[in-house]
Amino acid sequence: MDSDFGAPRELSDLQKHRTLYEPEIPPCLQGTTVRVEFGDATSTADQSISHSFPHTYGQPLAHFLRATAQIPDAQVINEHPAVRVGAVFCGRQSPGGHNVVWGIHNALKLHNSNNVLLGFLGGSEGLFAQKTLEITDDVLASYKNQGGYDLLGRTKDQIKTTEQVNAALATCKALKLDGLVIIGGVTSNTDAAQLAETFAEAKCPTKVVGVPVTLNGDLRNQFVETNVGFDTICKVNSQLISNVCTDALSAEKYYYFIRLMGRTASHVALECTLQSHPNMVVLGEEVASSKLTLFDLTKQICDAVQARAEQDKNHGVILLPEGLVESIPEVYALLQEIHELHRQGVSIDNMSSNLSPWASALFEFLPPFIKKQLLLHPESDDSAQLSQIETEKLLADLVETEMTKRLKEGTYKGKKFNAICHFFGYQARGSLPSKFDCDYAYVLGHICYHILAAGLNGYMATVTNLKNPVNKWRCGAAPITVKHVLSNGTNA
Amino acid sequence: MDSDFGAPRELSDLQKHRTLYEPEIPPCLQGTTVRVEFGDATSTADQSISHSFPHTYGQPLAHFLRATAQIPDAQVINEHPAVRVGAVFCGRQSPGGHNVVWGIHNALKLHNSNNVLLGFLGGSEGLFAQKTLEITDDVLASYKNQGGYDLLGRTKDQIKTTEQVNAALATCKALKLDGLVIIGGVTSNTDAAQLAETFAEAKCPTKVVGVPVTLNGDLRNQFVETNVGFDTICKVNSQLISNVCTDALSAEKYYYFIRLMGRTASHVALECTLQSHPNMVVLGEEVASSKLTLFDLTKQICDAVQARAEQDKNHGVILLPEGLVESIPEVYALLQEIHELHRQGVSIDNMSSNLSPWASALFEFLPPFIKKQLLLHPESDDSAQLSQIETEKLLADLVETEMTKRLKEGTYKGKKFNAICHFFGYQARGSLPSKFDCDYAYVLGHICYHILAAGLNGYMATVTNLKNPVNKWRCGAAPITVKHVLSNGTNA
Repeated sequence: MDSDFGAPRELSDLQKHRTLYEPEIPPCLQGTTVRVEFGDATSTADQSISHSFPHTYGQPLAHFLRATAQIPDAQVINEHPAVRVGAVFCGRQSPGGHNVVWGIHNALKLHNSNNVLLGFLGGSEGLFAQKTLEITDDVLASYKNQGGYDLLGRTKDQIKTTEQVNAALATCKALKLDGLVIIGGVTSNTDAAQLAETFAEAKCPTKVVGVPVTLNGDLRNQFVETNVGFDTICKVNSQLISNVCTDALSAEKYYYFIRLMGRTASHVALECTLQSHPNMVVLGEEVASSKLTLFDLTKQICDAVQARAEQDKNHGVILLPEGLVESIPEVYALLQEIHELHRQGVSIDNMSSNLSPWASALFEFLPPFIKKQLLLHPESDDSAQLSQIETEKLLADLVETEMTKRLKEGTYKGKKFNAICHFFGYQARGSLPSKFDCDYAYVLGHICYHILAAGLNGYMATVTNLKNPVNKWRCGAAPITVKHVLSNGTNA
Repeated sequence: MDSDFGAPRELSDLQKHRTLYEPEIPPCLQGTTVRVEFGDATSTADQSISHSFPHTYGQPLAHFLRATAQIPDAQVINEHPAVRVGAVFCGRQSPGGHNVVWGIHNALKLHNSNNVLLGFLGGSEGLFAQKTLEITDDVLASYKNQGGYDLLGRTKDQIKTTEQVNAALATCKALKLDGLVIIGGVTSNTDAAQLAETFAEAKCPTKVVGVPVTLNGDLRNQFVETNVGFDTICKVNSQLISNVCTDALSAEKYYYFIRLMGRTASHVALECTLQSHPNMVVLGEEVASSKLTLFDLTKQICDAVQARAEQDKNHGVILLPEGLVESIPEVYALLQEIHELHRQGVSIDNMSSNLSPWASALFEFLPPFIKKQLLLHPESDDSAQLSQIETEKLLADLVETEMTKRLKEGTYKGKKFNAICHFFGYQARGSLPSKFDCDYAYVLGHICYHILAAGLNGYMATVTNLKNPVNKWRCGAAPITVKHVLSNGTNA
């Protein structure tokens, strides 16, 4: 871990310019008197949730409104006793994360200058080890509206084992935290829900709040319209994909296979497709629901290449999501076997001989580079190391072999098939956040404070009506355990 | 080849916005009376040049000036008989190329509305086959200030064989061209010099003009300060590298190996290093001059990784140029053997067994993916297919092996070495050109017209004083055969 967290750093002119931007906030968050209104108690159809979360399940929705008039049944918070809050970046960095911290800090200082915000260094690792950095205006100065998570860093994704949860509990007690803000995606917010329940059970006064920050854009329900970072990632990637499309039209001799971040959900690939108009996109969800095999997928792409060649077009751009490899049924099954062998402690050299006959047959069929990548140890949440598996190269390889065969057979009459493969991951993930993500993240940070001020535990900060200008945004909080409220207004 | 060249096309809002920009031009090109002044006859120290280019060698430098006063020895062109000009994109597309065409078109129409500009479709292939598109305001509308070469396309890089040169000559005669503008880099401008000489020898009235357009930035001498596209490529790549640097600081667990376009010259890698401050850059020129082997290079990187780990830094960003593989002496020698075997018609399957013992030893030592890439057929100019050779992966592989060894031996005490590899090529090459490249390309286009109007053959359009604002730029033309004029002002 780097020893210079929070130290002054040199910014480029562009970065400096960006630090000057003051995010917009909706009227309800302006000033220091925010009214909290509660909806009906929430619930889900899933009975197991209520059993697993006896202390935090079934809490009502909360709405934060402008305190302009006295309204019965509403709670206006006028007193602001000093509070201590901790914040932690969990999982993959997402553009805008720094603004969540800035938003929390700003709201805290606005309500009581004695409020304290501690950032955990190195993600969950810092949470377990009580490694903190006190967030101040000086510390924040060069991170406002900047990409990355380098203000605090992040390491481990998970707060899952009893040992980890107990370490988090011990930290919150030792640091006398009134609130703990978990900034992350699906996995991290699941952890947040579990922590909230455990803390309530243990009568720990620290309230746990989740913030939907993930470039994957897959933390979605009727209260969470999008996630911090998704807008930026799609815009930056779409620009790069458009450049590649221009390149394809100019060189007229390549097919570009571009893999995009997104894991189990293909949202990034789909949104980039809508923004940049490539020739083809393979969506993991469609592959999984149609149970398309590697052979089917290869054939689909080859047929498209052949059809384009008949129009004298020997070039194109094909997008695919990082998670595709897990959506292909036979590859998924192979990965499951490999992960089981990892759990059993089988060494990589002995894996191949321990596979089932059919998994072994598939494995032997695959090119060496992909074999090596499939054998990588799974991530801490037991998913494959998707960023390291070059599915785009596997498909390009298979398509090239098939097109060469068709060329020889005479069914394909186009030019020799040439593929160029790209993974657009890290270069977009570290980019400066878009204006939307700057505002959204900052507003969510403010809401975290209001959730804690209202004494709520196990809630996620939410903003709805995001398609409208910021002054129309609706701020609220939803229990993390609720998936959705039925649309007839009753909570079933 | 696409059949819809020059057809109306849909642009994004950003692209539309960019079409509205009117490039700046220096005062000497404003209006229709440009004065041409000639310097001393040029020469080079290389005797073989004068022998090879008897018709086009030793011509004087030309300067284009504002025709404000009557000056003796200067030629003011006031008459503008109608001319027919052809333009062709040669070699790799470079951002700004479209503005060269726009500049030629604009200057042509400014001086005589009967002037005609024909663009060759599909690069040199179109030149040989007389496939043209007449450039009009309508055709240009959606390509102004846009990236790529998709207005005309490009295919083959070379105009080299007698057959190709004769085809170009036949086309110029058949289309009654007064001028042929070759838009490209080192190879294409070498071809332009040869064409000019051949045309003069054949008494063909078509004058040949070269324009320095290459993202590699390697077409340089005292008259050619930089090339169209270099500014854009360095800016776009530096932005992406900066994003990756932010990512490295946030995740704190990866070394990113980034290969940049640039072929034999490392200019792009060097300029990007100055702009984005990565942790390390490997320059091909330094590797070649110090005769560093793969082993030396690996050791250098490993030592840097180890030194950083001692400061608790287990992450970093390393840049390398695409051409690096040809700068490493033993790999270069291996490639030379492989290319010789290609020339002898040896099939790829039999290559390995036909290598010399030491080349074979190196070849067998290399990982399978790089073996396959080294065996690719060389490009039309006999260089390796550098864009397809993943030198960054080779180095990352070798470094990983060495770091694992050092970790076991206890000499390295950092975290497990994790590499992530990138090739930043096509996503930058297709990008919108920078303001500088828009202006520079457009001005060069204008100069092409004035070179032709002055009846010059075998010249390259040049702009000097480029560090200053556009109104201080100096426009001129230098014989393509001249490398440089000695700095004492005499032409030796």
